[in-house]
Amino acid sequence: MIATKYQGNKTFKVHEKEITEPSKGEVRIKVAYVGVCGTDVHIYHGMMDKRVSIPETIGHEMSGVIDAVGPGVADFSVGEKVVVRPLDDRLVKSSDKGYNHICEDLKFIGIDSEGAMQQYWNVPSFVLHKLKPETDLKLAALIEPLSVAAHDVRRSGLVKGETAVVLGGGPIGMLVAMVAKEVGAQVIISEVNPKRIQKAKELGFDAVNPMEVDLVDYVKSKTENKRADVVFEVAGVQPALDIMCEVAGIRGRIVMVAIHGEKKPVDLFKFFWKELSLIGARVYEKQDYEKAIELVAANKLPFKDMITDVQPLSNIQTVFENIDKNPDGMKVLMDCSL
Amino acid sequence: MIATKYQGNKTFKVHEKEITEPSKGEVRIKVAYVGVCGTDVHIYHGMMDKRVSIPETIGHEMSGVIDAVGPGVADFSVGEKVVVRPLDDRLVKSSDKGYNHICEDLKFIGIDSEGAMQQYWNVPSFVLHKLKPETDLKLAALIEPLSVAAHDVRRSGLVKGETAVVLGGGPIGMLVAMVAKEVGAQVIISEVNPKRIQKAKELGFDAVNPMEVDLVDYVKSKTENKRADVVFEVAGVQPALDIMCEVAGIRGRIVMVAIHGEKKPVDLFKFFWKELSLIGARVYEKQDYEKAIELVAANKLPFKDMITDVQPLSNIQTVFENIDKNPDGMKVLMDCSL
Repeated sequence: MIATKYQGNKTFKVHEKEITEPSKGEVRIKVAYVGVCGTDVHIYHGMMDKRVSIPETIGHEMSGVIDAVGPGVADFSVGEKVVVRPLDDRLVKSSDKGYNHICEDLKFIGIDSEGAMQQYWNVPSFVLHKLKPETDLKLAALIEPLSVAAHDVRRSGLVKGETAVVLGGGPIGMLVAMVAKEVGAQVIISEVNPKRIQKAKELGFDAVNPMEVDLVDYVKSKTENKRADVVFEVAGVQPALDIMCEVAGIRGRIVMVAIHGEKKPVDLFKFFWKELSLIGARVYEKQDYEKAIELVAANKLPFKDMITDVQPLSNIQTVFENIDKNPDGMKVLMDCSL
Repeated sequence: MIATKYQGNKTFKVHEKEITEPSKGEVRIKVAYVGVCGTDVHIYHGMMDKRVSIPETIGHEMSGVIDAVGPGVADFSVGEKVVVRPLDDRLVKSSDKGYNHICEDLKFIGIDSEGAMQQYWNVPSFVLHKLKPETDLKLAALIEPLSVAAHDVRRSGLVKGETAVVLGGGPIGMLVAMVAKEVGAQVIISEVNPKRIQKAKELGFDAVNPMEVDLVDYVKSKTENKRADVVFEVAGVQPALDIMCEVAGIRGRIVMVAIHGEKKPVDLFKFFWKELSLIGARVYEKQDYEKAIELVAANKLPFKDMITDVQPLSNIQTVFENIDKNPDGMKVLMDCSL
C-alpha cells in the first residue's frame, strides 16, 4: 500500500508500506478520502514540529470502509462504511469531570499518533462511527469538520429565529453557517476575502465585507436593532475580537472557535455591560458526530460545493503547496485509491 | 430635612431642603441607612463627572420606611419598611429583548438621577421591595450589594458541591463568597490585602494570598485536581485576569463582575482548550432582590460583620475622606436620622 509521511521542512514523503493486521480491539480501514484540515496545514508549515513525532503520517478528516476486524471487536464488520472521531481519551481522569473529548491527557489521532493520509489505517474501534451503505464517501470526509461546526452551534445554544453572525468565512466558518441555518437562525457571514464572500453568496448566505460595510449597522438593520444573539469568532484576528463585542446584542453569546495562540486585548467592559457570554468550543462530542452524520445523510445542505478539489493521495506534496498558493479554496480532499 | 450634594472636586455639601410631596406613582421614603458603594467612591473621585449632573444627591444602597404615598400608588402604605432597586427601566425597547435590568437606555437611580443620601427621598413605586416589619434596617442597607452578589452567583449556575474561587475579597467579593457558600459550594477567596484576608478568615472563609501561595496548586489540592468550577473575577486587575483562566477547571465558568474600563489581554486559548465560559454579570433582576431580602431575613450569614462603620449622614465629607484613608474597611453606612 501507499502511505505518506510528514518529514518536517514543508516536505511529505510518499512510500510503500506493508499492510498490517489490526491488533486486539482495532479495525483496519481502507481509507477512501482524506481531507486537509487547517491543522494539517499548520503542521506542514512546521508550526507543530514540537508536538508531531517526525516523520509522521498525519490526517484526521476521512472516510473509509472496514477492511479487516481485529480480535475482540464485535460491533463492526468488513465492508461497513465508517468515519473516525479521532479522539483517543484512554488516559481520561476523574478531574476531567466527564468531559472526555477535552480531557487533559487527550491524544488527537492524526497529530499525536498515526493518521489517515495512507491507503490503509489501523485504529481502535471505539473511535468509529458507522455510516449508512448509501452514504457518499466524498461528502463523508467532511463529517469531521462538520462535527466541529455542530459542536460550536450546540455550545452556543442557538435556536430557531435567532440571528447568528459568523466572523470568518473559511471552511469551518462556512460549515458553522450551514449548521446555524439548518437550526433555523438568520445567518450573516462577515469575511474580508472577496472570493470567499462570493462563495458564501453562492452557498445562499448573506455575506458582507466588514472593511466595506459597517457590520454593526448592517446587523442592526437586519435585527430591528437587536444585534446578534450569537457570534461565532472563527477568524482568529484582532479586528474580529474587537467587533465580536460590538455586534453581539444584550445577553449575546460569543463562541470562541478560533485558536488565539497569544493573549489578546478583549473589551471586558462590554461583557459586563451587556451581560455577554464567551463560550469556548473545542473539537466535538459523540452527539456532534451523530448530528453531522445525519446532516450528510440528509444531504440538504450544500456540502458538495465545499469540496473545491480532489487529488490523488500520491500528489500530497503538490496538494499542500497548492493550498498555500490558493487561499480562496475551501476543502481539498485526497483520493486514497490513487 | 437634611440632604447632601456631590459638588465635584471631592466635595459634598450638606444642606437644608424642603420635604416635597410624592408625585403620581411615587412614594416618599424616610431613609434609614445609606451605604457607600464603590461607585459612589468613583463619583467622589471625579471619575464619573461626565455622567453625574453636578451638583447631585447620589447614593443607592439604602433602607427606609414609607413616609407618604402619592396618587395612584395602591400597593404600599405609610410605615412599611422598604428597599429600592435603583433601576429606572422606563425607556426599555423591544431590542432589549426583555432584559430590562440592563436595557440600553437604563437610568441608574442615584447616579443618573437623585439618590438616597438625604433624609427623605421620593421614588417611583415600581423600584420598591417590601421588607418584613422585624427586618433590621442596618442589615437591610446591604440588600442592594447583596443582590449584586446573588445575581453573580445565579449567573454562574453554581450548585451545591462545586468549588468557587472568588478573586478579590472586597465588599462585593465577600458577599459573593457568602452567597456561594449558602448555595453549598466550597469557597476559596483569593486576596492580596492581609487585613482583608484576616477579615475573610474571621467570616469563616478559606482565604489565601496569591502573592504567597500558588493559587492554582492550592485550588487543585482542595479539589482532587479538578480546579475551580466557577471563578468570580471581582478584583479588576490584570493578575486576576491571568489567573482566572488557570484556576478554572475543564468547562469552568468565569463570572466577570469587575469593571474593566480598558481592553485587557485575555488568554483566549484557554477558553478554547478547556471550553471555559466567561459570563458577564451586571446589577440584578427582581428575583435577585427577593433572594437577598430572604437571606437578610434569615440572617444566617455574617452580614453584620460586613458593616465596619456607621456614621451620621451629616458627616458625609469625612466618611468619604476616611474611606480613601482606610482601604481595609468593608461596608460603611450613614445613619440618615443624624
